[in-house]
Amino acid sequence: MSFGVNSEVGMLRKVMVHRPGLEHRRLTPSNAEELLFDDVLWVSRAQAEHDAFREVMRERGVEVYLAERLLTEALANPEARGWISDHVLNEREVGVAAADRARTWATEAPAAEVAEFLIGGITKADVAEDLGLEWESADPAGMLLPPLPNLLFQRDPSCWIYDGVTLNPMTKPARKPETMIMEAIYGFHPMFASEKFPIWLGGAGEDWGRAHVEGGDVQPIGNGAVMIGMGERTTPQAVLWIARSLFRAGSAQLVLAVHLPKSRSYMHLDTVITMCDRDLVTMFPQVVDGARTWAIRPGESPDDLVVAEQRRPLPELMAEALGVERMRVVPTGGDSFEAEREQWDDGNNVVALEPGVVIGYERNTGTNEALRREGIEVIPIEGFELGRGRGGSHCMTCPLQRDPAF
Amino acid sequence: MSFGVNSEVGMLRKVMVHRPGLEHRRLTPSNAEELLFDDVLWVSRAQAEHDAFREVMRERGVEVYLAERLLTEALANPEARGWISDHVLNEREVGVAAADRARTWATEAPAAEVAEFLIGGITKADVAEDLGLEWESADPAGMLLPPLPNLLFQRDPSCWIYDGVTLNPMTKPARKPETMIMEAIYGFHPMFASEKFPIWLGGAGEDWGRAHVEGGDVQPIGNGAVMIGMGERTTPQAVLWIARSLFRAGSAQLVLAVHLPKSRSYMHLDTVITMCDRDLVTMFPQVVDGARTWAIRPGESPDDLVVAEQRRPLPELMAEALGVERMRVVPTGGDSFEAEREQWDDGNNVVALEPGVVIGYERNTGTNEALRREGIEVIPIEGFELGRGRGGSHCMTCPLQRDPAF
Amino acid sequence: MSFGVNSEVGMLRKVMVHRPGLEHRRLTPSNAEELLFDDVLWVSRAQAEHDAFREVMRERGVEVYLAERLLTEALANPEARGWISDHVLNEREVGVAAADRARTWATEAPAAEVAEFLIGGITKADVAEDLGLEWESADPAGMLLPPLPNLLFQRDPSCWIYDGVTLNPMTKPARKPETMIMEAIYGFHPMFASEKFPIWLGGAGEDWGRAHVEGGDVQPIGNGAVMIGMGERTTPQAVLWIARSLFRAGSAQLVLAVHLPKSRSYMHLDTVITMCDRDLVTMFPQVVDGARTWAIRPGESPDDLVVAEQRRPLPELMAEALGVERMRVVPTGGDSFEAEREQWDDGNNVVALEPGVVIGYERNTGTNEALRREGIEVIPIEGFELGRGRGGSHCMTCPLQRDPAF
Amino acid sequence: MSFGVNSEVGMLRKVMVHRPGLEHRRLTPSNAEELLFDDVLWVSRAQAEHDAFREVMRERGVEVYLAERLLTEALANPEARGWISDHVLNEREVGVAAADRARTWATEAPAAEVAEFLIGGITKADVAEDLGLEWESADPAGMLLPPLPNLLFQRDPSCWIYDGVTLNPMTKPARKPETMIMEAIYGFHPMFASEKFPIWLGGAGEDWGRAHVEGGDVQPIGNGAVMIGMGERTTPQAVLWIARSLFRAGSAQLVLAVHLPKSRSYMHLDTVITMCDRDLVTMFPQVVDGARTWAIRPGESPDDLVVAEQRRPLPELMAEALGVERMRVVPTGGDSFEAEREQWDDGNNVVALEPGVVIGYERNTGTNEALRREGIEVIPIEGFELGRGRGGSHCMTCPLQRDPAF
Repeated sequence: MSFGVNSEVGMLRKVMVHRPGLEHRRLTPSNAEELLFDDVLWVSRAQAEHDAFREVMRERGVEVYLAERLLTEALANPEARGWISDHVLNEREVGVAAADRARTWATEAPAAEVAEFLIGGITKADVAEDLGLEWESADPAGMLLPPLPNLLFQRDPSCWIYDGVTLNPMTKPARKPETMIMEAIYGFHPMFASEKFPIWLGGAGEDWGRAHVEGGDVQPIGNGAVMIGMGERTTPQAVLWIARSLFRAGSAQLVLAVHLPKSRSYMHLDTVITMCDRDLVTMFPQVVDGARTWAIRPGESPDDLVVAEQRRPLPELMAEALGVERMRVVPTGGDSFEAEREQWDDGNNVVALEPGVVIGYERNTGTNEALRREGIEVIPIEGFELGRGRGGSHCMTCPLQRDPAF
Repeated sequence: MSFGVNSEVGMLRKVMVHRPGLEHRRLTPSNAEELLFDDVLWVSRAQAEHDAFREVMRERGVEVYLAERLLTEALANPEARGWISDHVLNEREVGVAAADRARTWATEAPAAEVAEFLIGGITKADVAEDLGLEWESADPAGMLLPPLPNLLFQRDPSCWIYDGVTLNPMTKPARKPETMIMEAIYGFHPMFASEKFPIWLGGAGEDWGRAHVEGGDVQPIGNGAVMIGMGERTTPQAVLWIARSLFRAGSAQLVLAVHLPKSRSYMHLDTVITMCDRDLVTMFPQVVDGARTWAIRPGESPDDLVVAEQRRPLPELMAEALGVERMRVVPTGGDSFEAEREQWDDGNNVVALEPGVVIGYERNTGTNEALRREGIEVIPIEGFELGRGRGGSHCMTCPLQRDPAF
Repeated sequence: MSFGVNSEVGMLRKVMVHRPGLEHRRLTPSNAEELLFDDVLWVSRAQAEHDAFREVMRERGVEVYLAERLLTEALANPEARGWISDHVLNEREVGVAAADRARTWATEAPAAEVAEFLIGGITKADVAEDLGLEWESADPAGMLLPPLPNLLFQRDPSCWIYDGVTLNPMTKPARKPETMIMEAIYGFHPMFASEKFPIWLGGAGEDWGRAHVEGGDVQPIGNGAVMIGMGERTTPQAVLWIARSLFRAGSAQLVLAVHLPKSRSYMHLDTVITMCDRDLVTMFPQVVDGARTWAIRPGESPDDLVVAEQRRPLPELMAEALGVERMRVVPTGGDSFEAEREQWDDGNNVVALEPGVVIGYERNTGTNEALRREGIEVIPIEGFELGRGRGGSHCMTCPLQRDPAF
Repeated sequence: MSFGVNSEVGMLRKVMVHRPGLEHRRLTPSNAEELLFDDVLWVSRAQAEHDAFREVMRERGVEVYLAERLLTEALANPEARGWISDHVLNEREVGVAAADRARTWATEAPAAEVAEFLIGGITKADVAEDLGLEWESADPAGMLLPPLPNLLFQRDPSCWIYDGVTLNPMTKPARKPETMIMEAIYGFHPMFASEKFPIWLGGAGEDWGRAHVEGGDVQPIGNGAVMIGMGERTTPQAVLWIARSLFRAGSAQLVLAVHLPKSRSYMHLDTVITMCDRDLVTMFPQVVDGARTWAIRPGESPDDLVVAEQRRPLPELMAEALGVERMRVVPTGGDSFEAEREQWDDGNNVVALEPGVVIGYERNTGTNEALRREGIEVIPIEGFELGRGRGGSHCMTCPLQRDPAF
């Protein structure tokens, strides 16, 4: 199989990312909150930073795929265009008057244009002709199809766990179309369509109820174990569903469910802990130390989940799951003020390219320095603009293929 | 047909309401915001106020149905229990470990108990045995099934428009189960199951996308016209869908779509304007005067909606639609401070029992007095507690059968 | 001396309160937050509830003074009018153009009118003539002099502690004029002006820096002890200043400083604990149990404060301070949901008229019932409207004279 | 006289600024809101950006003074240390127990250390010994003396208007100490103490009531005219007071008072309009176009202020006041999304070094480009970190000496 993620630190071979674009040009101070973004970006600079970020990965031999490119390529298939029309541009989404015209556009326009507007959103100004009430009643700068600035955080809408993937039903309705786009890519891009792989959870055909998950909470740490955060964005319902799917397929034998406080600062598990080496994590102790953790394992049958609360620190549980003697811990750097700032600035949110090699924002000097003292190679990237959306290199990457760590 | 709502002020014959209960006992200052409630209630007093409210309607000859009673009766049908298990208590909603046990409970427990907990929510303390991770990881007072305090506002989850009904896909995920409960009642209670009536919009089987509507925005004013607010809770997508359904069936020929500012104070159209007589509305001019309005009519075919912005005041448009010479307008009473308070306290949110007879909270003395000066009979009810959730007699009622006004 | 408060539960002889009025008629949903009020009131009903509240106290022999009446009477003295002009209506407060005319008005208008507008605020509509830029640039319903709705909570702006009083520098600038009004009353009303008593802290002549205190945090529990909450509204700076003043005068020998979390629900100490009898408190354990407490005592000289953290529960510390064997504790009533609601609805915020007799809102049925089981007489009052500002009988009263408890 | 600001665009000769420091190292995501800052900074990078900013000014011949250096130098005078102890470290500010020790420290410690901690704040960790209750009861990372991160925006705490200065009583209590520091500098630094200049408004000795002003609202545009914004931070009371002071001294003959909506985005007048040349402004039309403006002029006596609303656009009023034929207007650049972002990122907040030469953040490419097309030289500076506090080159500078524009 050409895809599959078998650890958090093994050799990263293929990764999917999204370059900032039109959707960020449409972010403003007044719509940022509604679009779940913390600040606005200087877009051309953010693009340059992202270009450098991708270059660093390529230099280390990672194949880097752009989600927007994959979507464009998927749209070469007319079935993909039909699927998009049915799921993203249907009457319930864009209105009964506009849906027809939207379908025509989605069928006939150049694939790159369709991809760009699906991600970047459509404003009144984009549409010359009158398209009905939604169009009319919108504010002048109103969005007919909303932009998807969070697609930058490719970690979230889908995630590979060992040999399968999830199509994440995310908590916030504003992010729902991101998952649709992923589903279109996985379903219609030749690179994926030619392979067979299981979907652990998700898919547009069903109502996923309160089973919500975002990839920033999911870490397939290796050795048949997965660590999943539960909090503002991921529910126990989703964790159990994923566990059962994995156990049924025999793709994993242990899920560590970690309960996080509901807070903007600690929105996902990977904002407070990520792995840097086979036996090393960087983490924000103020949050991780207090988190309750449960181990979920298959019982007599894979459907019979056995859930047991664990009373030991998370790094110990990880070490046991991975079979290493001891997990070294590098806390967020600096004094208590600096540590709080670096956690906020994604100091603990690093992605490993191989064991002991991670990419981190240069601004987190305290944490990066502490990691280096432990022998980790930290490749610095600029994140003046990228970081304004509150996400680091871990948040911005969706690994498609990664080796086991051992 | 035994059901159907043909106006806003014709003789009200049947109405559905919900008496405050367990779901309000579970409201607290710390969970109220999440549950979309503005304040907490003294529940036993709220019940007494609601009892008096229903009594007033009964005295005027209205048949008053309690939603919780109808749900209980519907659950006499095992199919109804199965439907509830499939849609409200399924694995995606309550988790893979708990769903089986929840289904057993929903199948075997007394119908009244099932109904009460579906509405009132289920806490850890309610469940003796361990039911898995959702149960475990919840906070001690955490909700395993969330309570539905907004069910008090029976106007919202479904609404009868002429001879059919909508099952409203509401904007806030927290209110989704309310519509499920309505669907179970309409689908399985013998009173409804024995009749045939169209569903204009909604239903658990489909993803309604961005087609959101809440009944507080919908007013079938009569003479084939419907007035629908668009704003925080109702989208143009839903308005157009409803319009098309009505036009296809020939049940209406005009929809007036009224754009409201997004604001907690003016959440629904009926918080700023309701009808009191064939030719009289009470309204909050600060909001209604500035609202943009569009008329939607069938074109050459019913599917070909013709949308045209109107430049006249809403009361004039209503008068024209109803064929009355002039619509009298009673603005919210008192000086500018008092008017703002009375709008907030549902002074404009009154339900008519027959032409010229409405029920209003006694506290809105300015508005009530102004209505009386215009010859309207205002039957006062106490709303010390009922009003704390921000809803008046219009919000709390779901008319099931109402005569035309003329 | 005719004034002095020697305990929290001894016979209450004189009390000052404020009846709701013009300032509450000017509260609206849109200005309530700015005016630090949680909701709007049905004013005439709130007045009726307050009338009944005062009647209950009078029936038990308490002399009840209205702050607005005392202010009116104080204004009989031209010096009082001058003081008000200098401190409340000066050029820095109302602007250089308006100050002259305001002074003329404050000098010549009937005392009752001056008192009413000082408390109720002045709007553009109140002023026929043009009074300059402040007047002009204000919004139509803008406030030229802001209304003081929180004056209802007479507990806060000043408080008697044994034989002296504080003129509280409150944290929120919006409440500053309330203290000015108290200072005018204490300084110019004959009833007070004829007596000599110390001011422990406060006064318009000085900048009190970060020494903030509100009376809701202050409880002179008796036997030379005072309990003071520190949190959102009261700072350690004020606590120490008061302690030193009391120790210098020999009026007290112990201050218990109780640290509260910063939260709207627990804004003052008396929202979570009040005394009902010589040896009984009602309290909200979730907050009080976790509060850190320090004892402050005079050292070798009264200026040499000795501060020591205490490791025992607050009721134990109170018992020791008062010399009773054990303090009985009645927690907020009902299950965890109800208790949270009753704390919010001022269930623990009761004022004692004499040992074992308190006034409480009838709505807090769980707490009231629990108190009665312990032998406390709870005199119920209605608080449908009074309670909307988040304050109970303790918050609404400023005891002027109270006997020791023993 | 060595000081005096006679225009907004004449040759800038002396300017005071503050380099980011300890106070920004103490900013965290959890205390930023309380400290009125929008985001946290990477401090060493912010310092580098500020260094470059100052270098640009020096290269153009401006004498650049650091406020922290001036404070240190002022503290060479023991009277300055006494004044600081009396006003910033007194018993009401730091508590009765700590004030003595704080005075000793402020008297004996090296001047640079005193200056650094006065600006940077004092934490528990900074103080080895126990200093009493404030110290004890504070959270571990609690601030005993709060840091002053907004001192970076030197425009606000004081402002030179022609030949005198204001010591601004700012609206937010958290910023009060900034003005104290300015007062100490102006009062005790030899450079200022050797000169005589009027104080138009402010000073620690008096209670300034509701007369609030921040320098970001004040623009002495030249020719005897001053433009002052009124809104969230500046009140009409302060505007009138300043006008009277200026008229009495004959230092100005016209004040244009501009009413701004209360909004975080348009906090000060200089966030929406600044001058770039004798006849050119850059502005954000969405706000400025709708602003009401009043002209204030001296009447028969300077104390008799004549206030008249103006009905023409602000640039026209400015042109008339300055005696230029027409004011050219460069609106915020880019499409409506970009313009909103650039306004937010201080695109309109530029400081002129001489007519036609301004400093602006490089990120505002649209606005900068538009200015250049009009012949303005825009010297770009990096503001990745500096801009996070929401302030541009105009906000960060306090001109001490500037020539007339003509």
